[in-house]
Formats: sequence, C-alpha cells, structure tokens
Amino acid sequence: MKNNKLEIQPVMDALEVIGGKWKFPILYSLCSGKKRFKDLLEDIGKITPKMLSLELKDLEINGLVTRTAIATVPVTVEYEMTKYGTTLEPVLRHIQDWGKKHRARILKGSTVLN
Amino acid sequence: MKNNKLEIQPVMDALEVIGGKWKFPILYSLCSGKKRFKDLLEDIGKITPKMLSLELKDLEINGLVTRTAIATVPVTVEYEMTKYGTTLEPVLRHIQDWGKKHRARILKGSTVLN
Repeated sequence: MKNNKLEIQPVMDALEVIGGKWKFPILYSLCSGKKRFKDLLEDIGKITPKMLSLELKDLEINGLVTRTAIATVPVTVEYEMTKYGTTLEPVLRHIQDWGKKHRARILKGSTVLN
Repeated sequence: MKNNKLEIQPVMDALEVIGGKWKFPILYSLCSGKKRFKDLLEDIGKITPKMLSLELKDLEINGLVTRTAIATVPVTVEYEMTKYGTTLEPVLRHIQDWGKKHRARILKGSTVLN
C-alpha cells in the first residue's frame, strides 16, 4: 500500500500542472505548431477569452508554453509549445486516441458495464 | 484549422469522462488490482469519502469501474477496473511517468521557460 501511495503522487503532481478542462485541449492545439490567441480560441471552441488567457498564463508559468508579442499593428501575440511542453505529446496523443475510441463506443451504445 | 478542430474534439470527449482532479488517481490506484473503498481513500490521501463516492459512481456509469458488494458483516464493497477501464492504462502510465520527471525538474529548480 505504501508503495502504491508513492506511485500515485506523480499522477497528482502531473495533474497540478496539466489537469483541468482546458489545458490538454490547448496543448493539443499547440502540438501542430505556434498559434495566435484567436486561432486557439477558434480551435478549442467553447472556451472564453478570459479563461484561455488564464490557462495560457498557467502553462507559461510552468514552462510548457511561450508567449511572443510581435510588433505589428495591431500587435500579434503567438503561443508556442516549449521543448519541455513537447514531452507531453505522447500523453496528448494517447488521450486523443482514447477519446476517439470512447466516442465510437458511445455511438455504438455500449457504455453499459462490461 | 478545420481539420485541427476535428482532432481536438476527441480530447474533449476523453476529458468529459476521465477529466477532473480525482479520476486519474482513482483509476491509477485500481491499475494494481481491486480495492475496497477504504483502501482507495488511503491510496489517494486527500480526497473526502463523499467525493470518492461520487467519482466512483461516475466511473461506474461510464463503464470504467465495477462495484461489488460482498455479504460480509459489515458488508465489504470492492471496486475493480473493467476490461474497458484497462484501455486507459497506457495513458495513466504516461501521466505518472511525466509527473515523476516534472517533479525531478522542479526539485532541480528548472521550471523557468526553456
């Protein structure tokens, strides 16, 4: 049991940084390259600009995303995954893959216990 | 962009079922075999019994976990991952692994942007 407890802590640690409703979708969107704020808004769909801004700041603080302001008129702000952020790509791809299979399962109407 | 939008939906779908603070740790705990309610409480540590109960019910509804009541005195309730639940094991192991590396990185004091 003690051993198991030790093993759960890293899962909790990871979720402190990448948990919540929006961080995975934001990071997933950035897997395909740098994006402007409004591109991210469009990609993710239901997120509010305020929430997106907060989530991006969190990801920036944790070294997963960089924010670059370009001196255009109006100013262009781009977000990009850091090298460290890209270490999450396998997790993101796995979750996406599982989500696809889960959707297929629901559409088949087989969400009852097996 | 449109293509990308299509790709993000499965991530959102997955998080509908396995998102939140507790579902990953609960599922991770059940990776090592069936557990009684109090074992799960002990494993996860900071969760309240009420929250654990709600989260387990959600996981049961989504076919990821089964609940078995055994007619002992007092009654023993065991939770176990379904075969479908085990399809999440690669995701859980990846997150755990990432959490370990993230902790090591924080302890080294290198959470600044790279």
